[in-house]
Amino acid sequence: MTLETPRDHCGVFGIYCHDEAALMTYLGLYALQHRGQESAGIVTNDGKRFYFHKNMGLVSEVFNENHLSRLKGNCAIGHVRYSTTGSSLLVNAQPLVINYYYGTMAVAHNGNLTNANELREKLERMGSIFQTTTDSEIVVHLLAKPSFPNKIDRLIYALGEIKGAYSLILMSQEEIIGIRDPHGIRPLVLGKLDEAYVLASETCAFDLIGAHFIRDVEPGEVVIINENGIKSIKPMPDTPHKFCIFELIYFARPDSFFFGKSVHTVRKALGARLAKEHPVSADIVISVPDSGNSAAIGFASESGIPYDRGFIRNHYVGRTFLKPNQMIRNFSTKIKLNPLKDVIEGKRVVVVDDSIVRGTTSKSRIASLRDAGAKEIHMRISCPPHRFPCYYGIDFPSNTELIAAQHNLDEVARFIQADSLGYLSIEGMIEAVGGEKEFCLACFNGDYAIKPECGTTKEILERNNSTVRL
Amino acid sequence: MTLETPRDHCGVFGIYCHDEAALMTYLGLYALQHRGQESAGIVTNDGKRFYFHKNMGLVSEVFNENHLSRLKGNCAIGHVRYSTTGSSLLVNAQPLVINYYYGTMAVAHNGNLTNANELREKLERMGSIFQTTTDSEIVVHLLAKPSFPNKIDRLIYALGEIKGAYSLILMSQEEIIGIRDPHGIRPLVLGKLDEAYVLASETCAFDLIGAHFIRDVEPGEVVIINENGIKSIKPMPDTPHKFCIFELIYFARPDSFFFGKSVHTVRKALGARLAKEHPVSADIVISVPDSGNSAAIGFASESGIPYDRGFIRNHYVGRTFLKPNQMIRNFSTKIKLNPLKDVIEGKRVVVVDDSIVRGTTSKSRIASLRDAGAKEIHMRISCPPHRFPCYYGIDFPSNTELIAAQHNLDEVARFIQADSLGYLSIEGMIEAVGGEKEFCLACFNGDYAIKPECGTTKEILERNNSTVRL
Amino acid sequence: MTLETPRDHCGVFGIYCHDEAALMTYLGLYALQHRGQESAGIVTNDGKRFYFHKNMGLVSEVFNENHLSRLKGNCAIGHVRYSTTGSSLLVNAQPLVINYYYGTMAVAHNGNLTNANELREKLERMGSIFQTTTDSEIVVHLLAKPSFPNKIDRLIYALGEIKGAYSLILMSQEEIIGIRDPHGIRPLVLGKLDEAYVLASETCAFDLIGAHFIRDVEPGEVVIINENGIKSIKPMPDTPHKFCIFELIYFARPDSFFFGKSVHTVRKALGARLAKEHPVSADIVISVPDSGNSAAIGFASESGIPYDRGFIRNHYVGRTFLKPNQMIRNFSTKIKLNPLKDVIEGKRVVVVDDSIVRGTTSKSRIASLRDAGAKEIHMRISCPPHRFPCYYGIDFPSNTELIAAQHNLDEVARFIQADSLGYLSIEGMIEAVGGEKEFCLACFNGDYAIKPECGTTKEILERNNSTVRL
Amino acid sequence: MTLETPRDHCGVFGIYCHDEAALMTYLGLYALQHRGQESAGIVTNDGKRFYFHKNMGLVSEVFNENHLSRLKGNCAIGHVRYSTTGSSLLVNAQPLVINYYYGTMAVAHNGNLTNANELREKLERMGSIFQTTTDSEIVVHLLAKPSFPNKIDRLIYALGEIKGAYSLILMSQEEIIGIRDPHGIRPLVLGKLDEAYVLASETCAFDLIGAHFIRDVEPGEVVIINENGIKSIKPMPDTPHKFCIFELIYFARPDSFFFGKSVHTVRKALGARLAKEHPVSADIVISVPDSGNSAAIGFASESGIPYDRGFIRNHYVGRTFLKPNQMIRNFSTKIKLNPLKDVIEGKRVVVVDDSIVRGTTSKSRIASLRDAGAKEIHMRISCPPHRFPCYYGIDFPSNTELIAAQHNLDEVARFIQADSLGYLSIEGMIEAVGGEKEFCLACFNGDYAIKPECGTTKEILERNNSTVRL
Repeated sequence: MTLETPRDHCGVFGIYCHDEAALMTYLGLYALQHRGQESAGIVTNDGKRFYFHKNMGLVSEVFNENHLSRLKGNCAIGHVRYSTTGSSLLVNAQPLVINYYYGTMAVAHNGNLTNANELREKLERMGSIFQTTTDSEIVVHLLAKPSFPNKIDRLIYALGEIKGAYSLILMSQEEIIGIRDPHGIRPLVLGKLDEAYVLASETCAFDLIGAHFIRDVEPGEVVIINENGIKSIKPMPDTPHKFCIFELIYFARPDSFFFGKSVHTVRKALGARLAKEHPVSADIVISVPDSGNSAAIGFASESGIPYDRGFIRNHYVGRTFLKPNQMIRNFSTKIKLNPLKDVIEGKRVVVVDDSIVRGTTSKSRIASLRDAGAKEIHMRISCPPHRFPCYYGIDFPSNTELIAAQHNLDEVARFIQADSLGYLSIEGMIEAVGGEKEFCLACFNGDYAIKPECGTTKEILERNNSTVRL
Repeated sequence: MTLETPRDHCGVFGIYCHDEAALMTYLGLYALQHRGQESAGIVTNDGKRFYFHKNMGLVSEVFNENHLSRLKGNCAIGHVRYSTTGSSLLVNAQPLVINYYYGTMAVAHNGNLTNANELREKLERMGSIFQTTTDSEIVVHLLAKPSFPNKIDRLIYALGEIKGAYSLILMSQEEIIGIRDPHGIRPLVLGKLDEAYVLASETCAFDLIGAHFIRDVEPGEVVIINENGIKSIKPMPDTPHKFCIFELIYFARPDSFFFGKSVHTVRKALGARLAKEHPVSADIVISVPDSGNSAAIGFASESGIPYDRGFIRNHYVGRTFLKPNQMIRNFSTKIKLNPLKDVIEGKRVVVVDDSIVRGTTSKSRIASLRDAGAKEIHMRISCPPHRFPCYYGIDFPSNTELIAAQHNLDEVARFIQADSLGYLSIEGMIEAVGGEKEFCLACFNGDYAIKPECGTTKEILERNNSTVRL
Repeated sequence: MTLETPRDHCGVFGIYCHDEAALMTYLGLYALQHRGQESAGIVTNDGKRFYFHKNMGLVSEVFNENHLSRLKGNCAIGHVRYSTTGSSLLVNAQPLVINYYYGTMAVAHNGNLTNANELREKLERMGSIFQTTTDSEIVVHLLAKPSFPNKIDRLIYALGEIKGAYSLILMSQEEIIGIRDPHGIRPLVLGKLDEAYVLASETCAFDLIGAHFIRDVEPGEVVIINENGIKSIKPMPDTPHKFCIFELIYFARPDSFFFGKSVHTVRKALGARLAKEHPVSADIVISVPDSGNSAAIGFASESGIPYDRGFIRNHYVGRTFLKPNQMIRNFSTKIKLNPLKDVIEGKRVVVVDDSIVRGTTSKSRIASLRDAGAKEIHMRISCPPHRFPCYYGIDFPSNTELIAAQHNLDEVARFIQADSLGYLSIEGMIEAVGGEKEFCLACFNGDYAIKPECGTTKEILERNNSTVRL
Repeated sequence: MTLETPRDHCGVFGIYCHDEAALMTYLGLYALQHRGQESAGIVTNDGKRFYFHKNMGLVSEVFNENHLSRLKGNCAIGHVRYSTTGSSLLVNAQPLVINYYYGTMAVAHNGNLTNANELREKLERMGSIFQTTTDSEIVVHLLAKPSFPNKIDRLIYALGEIKGAYSLILMSQEEIIGIRDPHGIRPLVLGKLDEAYVLASETCAFDLIGAHFIRDVEPGEVVIINENGIKSIKPMPDTPHKFCIFELIYFARPDSFFFGKSVHTVRKALGARLAKEHPVSADIVISVPDSGNSAAIGFASESGIPYDRGFIRNHYVGRTFLKPNQMIRNFSTKIKLNPLKDVIEGKRVVVVDDSIVRGTTSKSRIASLRDAGAKEIHMRISCPPHRFPCYYGIDFPSNTELIAAQHNLDEVARFIQADSLGYLSIEGMIEAVGGEKEFCLACFNGDYAIKPECGTTKEILERNNSTVRL
């Protein structure tokens, strides 16, 4: 799934009381890089001062040895961010660091508030000024309101105001606080590295630094880590859990664990279930690398059709300045993936991928397989058709661009020119991922736990924002 | 006056309704570059959106053709900034652009508030968050307070709160507003370029773009420029004018005009008066280039002693990474100025400069003249001794480092090893600059029009700021 | 095979008479990026002038739109280069462009001369000066010798002087010439894009630009492409072919074709043969991604043991400044590959890779599988043990660092702590790749077709070079 | 003299046996920066290896602390270079460092060979290849010819081949050699810093590092500095000396000494003589800063008309991307110099400058003085009219662009719109600079000591060069 990819907004990381806090945060963000490639930032504090550095670019581009050595202190939080072009601004890079009445505070946020507009207007009406277009700035404004003398009370007040999806890590001079919204839409996990507590969007961040996983931060939970150890409160009313199932299908790294299983294992199960729902007589199963790899193995294993590599990926794609369709047929496909002619030629091929968004990439992918001599091409998608926008932090194309929102199965198959097309059913998907948990399925079925104001938060904030930073 | 130079904080520029607003602002800042070399920024608006770009560096480094073409719209304001190392932060670069309840606003500020700390605390107590350590952020917080529905009322309220030195240019979607504090400490001039009104710190900015000077913005005046033309109000109580005399002695460009005379002409008069107050029998008059050039010509003309070049300036000094005293005797002096041996040798030399701050540069300068064979060296300074700190935007070294605050004339002369030393008297200075106006003389006589809280504003804001951006 | 990887020196590309010569060369180099990531360069000519740009970095970093538009003309050659640190110099980047008696000439070279030292001394004795440490400079010196008035005669003279491995592309105002050494050690292929002829190190470059493969440039062949079309001469005596088998095992992209088969298909055959030679009772077959992927699929298919993903690769490794062993156990392994715990845990695992060089990476890889709970680990290598250095362009560690040159099978197995270890036999390897061709097997059996002077060419040239460019 | 300025090619520096060789060379180049702002380079050697760094840009931009610390060894040579756009190539930056039969050699060159083309053809005919378009590459080719086993013999052979203007500094492992052409066209001075010998283009380089001046390297002299001390030979036949008089008039820094006098003192004498030759009744004498400053003081002093500042220079002009004539009348003048209105207004003004090249700058300068209210403008030039090209290293515009080559005095005066115009006579110039020495006056009288081949060397080399590096 490339070039028309849905995009998550962020990965977050925090560590309390470790001698190499900045380095561990750097590594944690390194492991979470797939969650955001636009900007990266780290804030540390040494109990007295806060030190921060953030910039546009990959973690490996933003930080060097010199930066890390100057990020002093044994507490740190970090953030990687993705965002669409309009708001790709350094000013929006996180974590946000602010000074307010009670001191200094840093915030890293993954997710999207659904009442951002309303809150921002309310705050502005009281005289607040805004320098970014992020929801994080709304959160810190709320936290800075001197409504209550006690920090936790102020936090509870702020959480009472915001709605939507949020996994937040806050850092003050004294503590680090991890918060997950009541529905638990975005992930947040708790671990330990020697004596230090760590928080991260995914467990893969723990693996790299050698931390061990303790447990998920629970939906609606506020975890406060300070010199007295760890304390947990649940200040918000209980509400059904709605973990974003698309984290399992697409976003999360295959080696991250949720609910006790690796994402890879879950995706193999999705692929196996897909083979049961949409069997086909074929010679080989191939995947669209790397997003379809796990599901393809599951499909092959269940169906008994041999798995092989059908595409070779160019690992140096990087940032070419070439326009997708420049000059060369199927260029946008070929620059990244080249079909293996002698694997494909004369074969009936099952191609497994994790989603179809606009359909143009799949179409071009299939065309390149035909060029390579495929006899039949059977497209299998390891989730149901995407029909609805996400208001909780995933940046799908608008409804009118989602091919499955506009067309039925046959039309999609005809558009992408597959000999057959099969999507996993909603029931099949839920069963494969482990039926007992509650998931947010809104992008498949339109059933939203939290009604958004109107449009996605980003759209709203951007709409109100009349500022363009070059 | 080098390496121990007092430093002003800013130059500001604004233009209303010109087809090439961004280009004119670029050129205006170019001409005002001497007022701040640390960062530069331009904000434009096209009636709908605001466009801005700012960065660390000189105007010629910060902007390229591409930036200017993307800074759309026919209104613009710009800013150049100087600041000491601790707070040399991009985040502090101006103009500041914010979104608030009534829209978007940009602010460029030259000067220093004397009650910044008090105001900031008051604002934080009401829930404001601060992302910079500039007084401009305080100003916009005040302007954003929804105290009154009418913009001008809100502005009057904000001006009623702030104390100190400020020449401000504000830009909203509809207008550009120029404001000068009631004492008129920092300069702000009004001009016209074809049909467009322009505001700038100094008239030299008008010369470059071909604008003509109309008049000074008066102390305490608020000039509102919009589609209805220009309107002026004076919402603040009248108070004695206190124009910073050091603008004339040192800061302003020699070709800028104040009170109808060029700064060069004023400095020649200072030099002539100096010759009368401290006559000496000598062979040549030389200046410390370029700061002493004008006064030296006045001194030579009045005294009848021939003027000659005594030092040659290296025009490529730029930013060397070398430490001032590295290895080589009088290095810090020689890297910039080399004495002309065959001019100096065997001569009785009058050296004219515009100030002595710590004394170390003068000492080293005099030593290099002795090395070049000077028989006698008579130092003449075109202003009185600096004895007191400035709270209105000039970044003198602290009191304990000002040599004249700690030592009498003889001690200073002995320290710098001059054969004689003469400072201009306060009376002589006032007479030479045109006695009738009122000036701020606080750095010479300690007579402060506005009492500061405690320390300079920058010190206070920095002190409260526990954040270090790498 | 990471962090202790053998490294090839170059990829070359050339195109004669295409309207988008620079763009096609850019794309060709893009596809050949795996052959050299240190520097990239393109030279074009429009029949009158030569235009070139080269720099350190990846193709996508070195070139932008502006460069391509200024690389005028419809002929172009390009080069990507790898080299060890000592000589990572811009001055060494290729293609080399020189002016000489007969005009201008550009050269791109893949391979290593074995008599570089001798030739350089001979040339210097005649007064030649050298500005780089590349063998390409030797080649152009020879070509510039005015030994014969006719260009082809001069070329034949030069080819008569040089020994070793070389795939060369030359460009003059009039033509492009592709040359392959008599043994055919390095690859060079010929293709056509519409009316334009193209030359490249591998066929994958043709796929991306939509060119079709015509044939290999044959060992000892000189292909001259000019306005009269294409002409081929074979000026050198016939000699046994010695194609570098390591191109098939490791270097070439899996989607490149040699001898009518994709490299992926060859590697699957190597893996299948490996399964026959070293069968083992196990639960899963995994690969070390991506180098072992194809062989692992072959092994799984032959053995009937299921294939699964055992490691997840971090696609954003990029250029971290971290030292391999910094602080964290198995860090050098984990930064790139993270084992999938729930796939590995409790299993008997076959791990397929394409080589063991120093052994330290394999050891660390196996340790991380043990940490993930593997019950047994059986290492299988899809080629024979590396025991001898390469003098023809592959930058293996020195003999004393090649673990198999110093230790027998049991010792290696013990060092890497595998439960069992199996290398493919030389016979098995030859049979799997298609026995009928002649290959250079020197790194496995020490049987060198061309005896080197003493040390690798790079070592010799560097040794003689007393110049250090910062 | 701006924007249409003649440009010298280089400044050179060398130091033998100093603990801080690289740092001293850095400072020496710093002081010589006015001789070339395009590229800078330093080569050092520690008796075994050569270390070098060069790049496009000013000395302060090209080098940082890290570079200097890595430029090891106690011998060093350095170079600053100017050149016109076409050949502004890094590849042409000096010093040139090459490997040849007898070891390694570095060369820094100031001047222009007049038989470069002929020599290059001759060398190419023998098989030499050229990678730059500089004459220095010709020099090293000649030095590398194994014509004689002894280095000095090879040097004498090479000097016997080359014709034209050259001040050369060579460095081998064992020694540093300074060479000046038999006519002594370009300067080269010898000094001592503690025990170390230093060579430089001008004495101002000695002042900065605290070295003392010993003597000029004489025309035709070869100074060899090695562990045996200093030795001098004169291998070339004696010939009349022809020191470039334009070094005194324009190029050299005012604080550099030639023939026992500072350049400033010489220029004052030129100005005084000019006042005698072209007296005028006027109110003030002003200069075009900074090039006319010294001559203006001389003119004022001789004529008794008061000297004043008429223009204020913007010290931050730097590199603006604006086109000279963009939009604004007299922009190209005003961006750099702003007239002082209250000095100029109503006055009869004598403007002293050091040359008129194309005339357009003078015209625009005079126009801006008229705008400022000047009553009369009398232009005085401190040298004779430029009528002929320079073949020895100064990059005047071509003959057809030199206004005085095409027009008589009256026509020039009318073109620049001066009320009167006076050039210094050749006799007056010679007398003022000290009549007894022999000077090259070719640019004034067309009397060339060495006949060039055809066109300037650069033109010839560029013409033959069909290579464009982006």
